[in-house]
Formats: sequence, structure tokens, C-alpha cells
Amino acid sequence: MPNEHIVRSYDEDLRRLRDMAARMGGLAERQVADATRALVRRDTDLASEVVQRDVQIDALEREIEAFCVQLLALRQPVASDLRVIISVMKVSNDLERIGDYAANAAKRAIVLASLPALGSLNGFERMTHLVQENLKAAMDALVNNDAEAAGRVWAADEPIDTIYNGIFRELLTFMMEDPRNISAATHMLFIAKNLERIGDHTTNIAERIHYAVRGDSLPDERPKADDSAYAVVRPAGE
Amino acid sequence: MPNEHIVRSYDEDLRRLRDMAARMGGLAERQVADATRALVRRDTDLASEVVQRDVQIDALEREIEAFCVQLLALRQPVASDLRVIISVMKVSNDLERIGDYAANAAKRAIVLASLPALGSLNGFERMTHLVQENLKAAMDALVNNDAEAAGRVWAADEPIDTIYNGIFRELLTFMMEDPRNISAATHMLFIAKNLERIGDHTTNIAERIHYAVRGDSLPDERPKADDSAYAVVRPAGE
Repeated sequence: MPNEHIVRSYDEDLRRLRDMAARMGGLAERQVADATRALVRRDTDLASEVVQRDVQIDALEREIEAFCVQLLALRQPVASDLRVIISVMKVSNDLERIGDYAANAAKRAIVLASLPALGSLNGFERMTHLVQENLKAAMDALVNNDAEAAGRVWAADEPIDTIYNGIFRELLTFMMEDPRNISAATHMLFIAKNLERIGDHTTNIAERIHYAVRGDSLPDERPKADDSAYAVVRPAGE
Repeated sequence: MPNEHIVRSYDEDLRRLRDMAARMGGLAERQVADATRALVRRDTDLASEVVQRDVQIDALEREIEAFCVQLLALRQPVASDLRVIISVMKVSNDLERIGDYAANAAKRAIVLASLPALGSLNGFERMTHLVQENLKAAMDALVNNDAEAAGRVWAADEPIDTIYNGIFRELLTFMMEDPRNISAATHMLFIAKNLERIGDHTTNIAERIHYAVRGDSLPDERPKADDSAYAVVRPAGE
């Protein structure tokens, strides 16, 4: 039964592909969590580990891409199998960017550990928690082929943007109160922005998974609460 | 001669795909140039145009992706044709991000036009000029199937990072001199960061094109001069 053998082995290939993506997603999630943990605990060893581990994510992306190209060439997939392969390739691209943002946040956490602490980091922890939850739910949706779960992740980015806007305004206020806060606050601004971007990439991932399962796209515009590009904060008393 | 017809039409498809990518690249390049022009001239109408035109880039990305999926399903390409299709799909992804960064810069240019002008914008113009040149060279390399040209673009990101580091330090100094500069300087910091990221995506594009033509990858690490994640600027007199 050579045919059955080929069919089974193809299913195994697709499962292996999903497993690779899930592993990459797990690693990206851990990188984001550890970057924030390093920031909050002022733990430069952990931050350095995050920076160094980024190559593992990059390597996984290349591995997934090579496997996808191999599947496309050898299996000549059509319809839903083709969509899954294309989607996983794009998901791996988003995960690689998430890894980059986490590594950049960790680099900044190293500098911040040498500067006076500034305000509460609760907002960063809450953002990270939400981002992690969404990323985990998105990767579960991929493994379980669950378009509805992917749709829920896609719609869940708004609270992340709201926390980001709050952090943004608070940090600008710290800067205005005392110029000695400016270096630290600037790095924290960029870390918050990185987390916000990680949230955006997570919604991209959810969109890809929805497309892979259903073959149609989610609406163009998703709920978006990040208005920081338009923000102006004035020094007190002005 | 049905076979010859199929061959010719397939070549036409691949040419059409490259043309679509080139069109998207041209539009992204224009968006970056106009965002900076709007910033320098404090031209909010032009900035609004850039924000609105972003949907055109998004639409082109979807069009390219759909065409790639169609080619993969109907043509079942292997070897170099497969690599070209995969690469164009990934390039369109990078171009979409470049469009996002340009639109975000344009949004911030609108706010900045309502705030007092801050320092010289020469650095932004120089960064934009270099980014544009690289993006144009990368897209030319795609159209001409030129791996060597792609390799040159890949290595040309360093001066962009160097200008970015200078802008970063200058803006922090402005913030420390006068808290009334903080809002404007923060938006300018993010615009500079957007330009730096656009440079990074351009090198990604160059890598994809190199891979499409040669089938092998450029080295893992490219020359990188952005050390702003580690930057600390202290207030004068401290």
C-alpha cells in the first residue's frame, strides 16, 4: 500500500511542521516573559541569557522555512494543506520579530539595572502577561486548527494598547519632573513599545491561523486603542 | 504547441509577480520619502496623505500573497522558481512593515507640526536618503535577479545606524536642556527608530533576494552599528 504510506507520512510532515511552530512559539513566549522578569528584578544575568537565546529563535525560523520549501517542492500541496504551510511560514516570521523585540527589551533591561529605578513596573508586567496569554492562545489555535480561538486572540489586543498608552504618558511625566529620569524613561518607553509591537505581531499570527483554517481573511481593521503616535504631554504648569 | 504556451505563460506569471513586488517597493519608497518630507516641511496635508495611502500597500501585500498561493497551487514550482515565489511573498511582508513604519512616522509628523520646532532635521533627511537608496537598489536587484547587488545592499545598513545613534543622543540632550522639548523629542525619537527599522527591513529584503537568486543564505550576522539599546546620556553637570 504505497499510497497509504505516502498519505500517512504527509500527515506526519504537517504535524511535524505544526510542532516546530509550537516549539518556536513556546520559546518566543519564554523570551518575552524572561525579558520583563529581568527588567522587574534588575537581573542582568537573565537579561543576557535572553539576548543570547535569540539565535535559537532565528535558527528555528530558518529550519521551519527550509522544511516548508521542502514540503512545497516534494508534496506539491494544494488547498488547505498549502494554506497551512504558507501560514506557518508567515507565523515563523512573526515569531522571529517577537524574539527580536524581546532581545532588544532585554538589552535595555541591562542598562536600566545600572540606573536609578523609576516608578512602578506593574504596567509592564500586566502588558507582558496579556501578550503571553494571547501568544499562547494563538499557538494553541494553530495546533488545534481552531479558527474561532484565533479570532478571539485577534480581537484581544485592545487592553494591551490601553496599558501601553498609560505607560507612555506616565514616563513622559517622569521625564518632565526631573531630567535625570530621561535616560531610564527613554529605554522604558522603547521597552513598552516593543511589548506593544509584540502584541501586534501576535494578532498577525492569529490572522494567519484564521486564514489557514478557514481560507478567508479577518476584516481589515481590528479594534485598536494605540493612539500614542498622536500623544502630547505638556510639562506641569505650562 | 500547448507546452510552449504553458512555459511562456509561466514566465509571464513570474514576471508579473516581480512587477507587483517592484510596484509595492516603489510605493513603500515614496511613503518613506513623503513621511520625512512632511516632517521637515511641517506639512500636515502630506502627512495625512501618507497615513491614508498605507491601505494601498496593505492591499498590494494581499494581492501578492494571493497570486503566490495561486502560482504554488497551479504551477507546482520547484527549485529556483519556488525560491523566487517564496522570496517575493516574504519581501511583500517586509514592504508592508516598511509602509506601517512610514505611516506611523507621518502620524507623528502631524503632531510635531503643532509643537515648537526642535533642532535640525538634517539627520532625518540623510537617514531617509540612505534608506530610500537601499530600498531602490534592493528592488532593482529583485527585478534584475542580481544577487551581488542584493549583497551590497545587505552590507550598506551601517551608516544608517550611525546616523540614528547620533540623532538619539542629540534628542536626549534636548530633553535634558528643557522639559518643554520632551513631547516633541519623544515623537522624533520614535520617528528615527522607525527609519532605523525600515533600514533593517531593507536588509531583510536584500537577504531574501540573495536567497532567491543563489539558493544560499548570507551570513547570520551583518555589520550592525546600532548600539542605542545600550545608550545612556546623562544630564549636563551631573
